[in-house]
Amino acid sequence: MEQSEHTFALTLSYIGTAFHGFARQDDDVQTVQGALEAALATVFAQPVWTVGAGRTDAGVHALGQVVSFSLPDEVLNGRDLARLCRSLNALTPDDMAIRSLAPKPAGFSARFSAIEREYRYRIVAGDTPPLFTAPFVWWLPGRPWLDYNLLRAAAEHLVGEHDFQSFCVSASSIDKNTVRTVKSISIFGVDHLGEPCTVVQVIGNAFLHSMVRIIVGSLAEVGLGRRPPAWLGEALEAQDRRAAGPTAPAQGLTLWRVRY
Amino acid sequence: MEQSEHTFALTLSYIGTAFHGFARQDDDVQTVQGALEAALATVFAQPVWTVGAGRTDAGVHALGQVVSFSLPDEVLNGRDLARLCRSLNALTPDDMAIRSLAPKPAGFSARFSAIEREYRYRIVAGDTPPLFTAPFVWWLPGRPWLDYNLLRAAAEHLVGEHDFQSFCVSASSIDKNTVRTVKSISIFGVDHLGEPCTVVQVIGNAFLHSMVRIIVGSLAEVGLGRRPPAWLGEALEAQDRRAAGPTAPAQGLTLWRVRY
Repeated sequence: MEQSEHTFALTLSYIGTAFHGFARQDDDVQTVQGALEAALATVFAQPVWTVGAGRTDAGVHALGQVVSFSLPDEVLNGRDLARLCRSLNALTPDDMAIRSLAPKPAGFSARFSAIEREYRYRIVAGDTPPLFTAPFVWWLPGRPWLDYNLLRAAAEHLVGEHDFQSFCVSASSIDKNTVRTVKSISIFGVDHLGEPCTVVQVIGNAFLHSMVRIIVGSLAEVGLGRRPPAWLGEALEAQDRRAAGPTAPAQGLTLWRVRY
Repeated sequence: MEQSEHTFALTLSYIGTAFHGFARQDDDVQTVQGALEAALATVFAQPVWTVGAGRTDAGVHALGQVVSFSLPDEVLNGRDLARLCRSLNALTPDDMAIRSLAPKPAGFSARFSAIEREYRYRIVAGDTPPLFTAPFVWWLPGRPWLDYNLLRAAAEHLVGEHDFQSFCVSASSIDKNTVRTVKSISIFGVDHLGEPCTVVQVIGNAFLHSMVRIIVGSLAEVGLGRRPPAWLGEALEAQDRRAAGPTAPAQGLTLWRVRY
């Protein structure tokens, strides 16, 4: 006997600082997915299992994380989606915000239907400590301003379809296929709440574990003048984590947007 | 016997949330000036009395607050100003950041030498709660987006030299002369950390107690369509606090910059 279901995509933002990452864990550990599923279970009076577009690490933020889930028809009977959003916002922690809830065709998966993911990494270099933006940036105290020309020249080596094994946490045996496509890496300056910072915007089809943070940690080595831009190409070819730079801290990273 | 002194201007930012305002109070109350003077006293091994450009209220933030102080020559002997900044940042609370320290001519006062002060007020209207910017904005939940044309038409009534008694906390008997010059009020949209908000930028020679917050609270009445733009002109002419709108919350306000 087949049951008719509705599938939804929920877009949410979170401040990653206090969460032990996105992915659901034991009940005692606060995760984004755990907190969201608890709120969904309360609202719909039944367990709800979600799938996320990006399994962000502990401390990583999200502006446009997308989560999908399905519910039997009768559970949704006549529910208003905007009102559901407000209920979920009231039931979830203050460091999460549900942005929207939209119906999707059957078979939609926030993870597998995604065709493009965008991450942004924020860096502040210089003597002045960041204040308003402090929880959302990587501060390099006392460092000179990063050289954008060097950063851009280095980033060029990573754009395209490559085996990114050098830019992946080696302990992560989840990713057997380490080939990914980086569509673009852009470097630009922005001003948030009056504080200037450098943004490394990385767009790709999908990313390996810690891949964006290792890319940024490696780019920073070049931007600070410690390595030449061509070193990024060598690190990529080596297919060895030890050939790339350090992993940049989680707090500078934000999952910005997912495209379907 | 005259003592030779050096005068300095210190520029600092702070998150106003946890401070009981800028102005020094009893020792048990955490204020910006109190915390700064305690750090200065430690660094210079003597009491230091400061003067601030703007006495911001409890909960009001600052990007470019300016504070002046003077010290006898011998106290400064050979001190490096960049290093002093770093020491002060280490000694002050995490929700304060000293941006710069610069020598000034004798007689300079952060308060009385200022020719122009700029405040910015951030408003978020709509169903989605602000997240990354939440401590720095006034959220109008469920309200429609503010009408910029109405806001701008209303603001025009306040630009120029006027008696702003209607836009001043009536209990404040400090301000006997309530004439001030508002040089400009600009309304524009910005994006901070991925979240859109409306900025009301107010530039003037000086401001009365809560003046910017009452201006913004009154403008919001117009932007939400509750009052016509001309109402701002009537409120101004009335010279009566009751004629203007409510005082907008402190957390949306930032002392942005002071010009000398």
